[in-house]
Amino acid sequence: MTQPLILRALRGEDTERAPIWFMRQAGRVLPEYRALKEKHSFWELARTPELACEVTMQPIRRFGMDAAILFQDIMTPLPPMGVDIAFSPGPVIAEPIRTRAQVDALRVPEADEIAPFVPEAIRLIRDACPVPLLGFGGAPLTLATYLVEGKGSKDYGVLRGFLRAEPEAAHALLDKLTEVSIRYLSAQVEAGAQAIQLFDSWAGLHDRATWETFSLPYNQRVMQALKALGVPRIYLAVHAAHLYPALPQLDCEAVSVDWRIPLDEVRPVVGAPCLQGNLDPADLLGPASHIDAAVRRVLAAGRGGAHVFNLGHGLMPSISPDAIQRAVDIVKSTPRYPAP
Amino acid sequence: MTQPLILRALRGEDTERAPIWFMRQAGRVLPEYRALKEKHSFWELARTPELACEVTMQPIRRFGMDAAILFQDIMTPLPPMGVDIAFSPGPVIAEPIRTRAQVDALRVPEADEIAPFVPEAIRLIRDACPVPLLGFGGAPLTLATYLVEGKGSKDYGVLRGFLRAEPEAAHALLDKLTEVSIRYLSAQVEAGAQAIQLFDSWAGLHDRATWETFSLPYNQRVMQALKALGVPRIYLAVHAAHLYPALPQLDCEAVSVDWRIPLDEVRPVVGAPCLQGNLDPADLLGPASHIDAAVRRVLAAGRGGAHVFNLGHGLMPSISPDAIQRAVDIVKSTPRYPAP
Repeated sequence: MTQPLILRALRGEDTERAPIWFMRQAGRVLPEYRALKEKHSFWELARTPELACEVTMQPIRRFGMDAAILFQDIMTPLPPMGVDIAFSPGPVIAEPIRTRAQVDALRVPEADEIAPFVPEAIRLIRDACPVPLLGFGGAPLTLATYLVEGKGSKDYGVLRGFLRAEPEAAHALLDKLTEVSIRYLSAQVEAGAQAIQLFDSWAGLHDRATWETFSLPYNQRVMQALKALGVPRIYLAVHAAHLYPALPQLDCEAVSVDWRIPLDEVRPVVGAPCLQGNLDPADLLGPASHIDAAVRRVLAAGRGGAHVFNLGHGLMPSISPDAIQRAVDIVKSTPRYPAP
Repeated sequence: MTQPLILRALRGEDTERAPIWFMRQAGRVLPEYRALKEKHSFWELARTPELACEVTMQPIRRFGMDAAILFQDIMTPLPPMGVDIAFSPGPVIAEPIRTRAQVDALRVPEADEIAPFVPEAIRLIRDACPVPLLGFGGAPLTLATYLVEGKGSKDYGVLRGFLRAEPEAAHALLDKLTEVSIRYLSAQVEAGAQAIQLFDSWAGLHDRATWETFSLPYNQRVMQALKALGVPRIYLAVHAAHLYPALPQLDCEAVSVDWRIPLDEVRPVVGAPCLQGNLDPADLLGPASHIDAAVRRVLAAGRGGAHVFNLGHGLMPSISPDAIQRAVDIVKSTPRYPAP
């Protein structure tokens, strides 16, 4: 039996059509999600395996996406380290990490202590789901960004200052986050996740030298641990065109590209076997003719190598399910070769 | 008499040392500013010419910067258009612009109605100030970003959706903002501003085609109006490496570069006679040895063409005056040629 389309594409195969999934496909864009949300808090949905499975499955049933993505929060592995997180609505760290002593006090929990509800949800999803399931986690520097800054920020100046003022504490923190990430993501793969996406959402804050010092080596450790488990690995960095020339150093199968640069310009620079992306989610707020043209432009730029169709960033709650379905239908009905 | 150093550099002269000023050099980093702020609100400081002059002069006296920058807010020209703005603490638009009817209702005030306290402050500063005075304004698309979104946002999805859903209303809005910007900035030059910096702070949100449609043509009109007045023009776009290949289309003397890419990589791409930048303000939070190395790295990358030393973005309030002075002293004592 041949491998599912998206796994072939993620391994670098220049497939007959582009597989498609959308970041944040499970969530607030769906009326069936909002109905569940009236009865349960976000954390109940994320921490109850049956509910996390249901939410993960909703966009598969409705849109016919080519992959499911685990419904979970990027902060999930942090509370077991001893971090107190509130949501209001974004994550707020009660005591932001600013000193070496605070870093030293963080625990590195065993794999089965981190978030046992996650592997359980993954097993349920794999039983129910007709398409591959992607697991995910935050890259160490992105997790550190939240822990140090403590709350959302325009340019995370506290974190950026911390890297300069306390580089040793920063490396110690990144080291612990790397170990926890490896344990957490390995548990996802062992439970059945068929690929892993590493979200380095805040990588683009940094110049290349800073990224090479504080992000790359830790991502590399995570990627190499996952390689040993045999799953394709997707690296996502948002607003990071200035980092692309450094990405060939990172060992991964796919790079997820945001909407700012056409895929055909990115492909020769990043060197990964597969590109994922990169429709601007805002394009789904335009009229039908705008959506059609934008989707076809991304498909055209994605030719010439493996391509997983996705957004450049997550769906916005204001996007209609009809717009999403329209994009899915175009992608699924467009052969990549010969060029239409 | 030779022209002042910074004006020579802005016009493309490869000067004997790099002139230096810092974005947000007037403001919360200075104890003497915070003392004034205890007695006066931000708006009182900005709208009272004597106080705006005093605040503008503070960093010149303390640090010996090579240029003063007008103390003012990017939103200043908007209330006379009929826009109701509150600060809490960032700008909040009471009724965000979302429809063509709202755009049509906006006024285009005459030059002397826009902000008469600004030319008055400029005249006072020119009398008092031993170094050139830079005026500034927001680029039309960046002003529109605030008007449409209504408040701060991580990725300004409402504005980005508006450009797709209501392109005609968007162009009508940008057209009005362009006309107001030309009147406002021309009044600054006529009162004595010796160069103008156009802040396209949110340009980096967009892919190149979107920027070329909704930002470039309006910036071009502003730049051409200023060219007729004979002042050098600086264009600033933050987090916009992906737009640099399009910048040679923009008629201006200088491009202000953020910290994400070394100046020697940017210079051949953007094509402007002068580059301004690009120390990461977070570098000023590190120890003295870190500051020294970071400043010298920027100076080295800035050689090979005209260079105005600046930050990649504004000073953060947590930066100490000592760190700023250290950077100023290094820049002012480092000859650019022959390479030290």
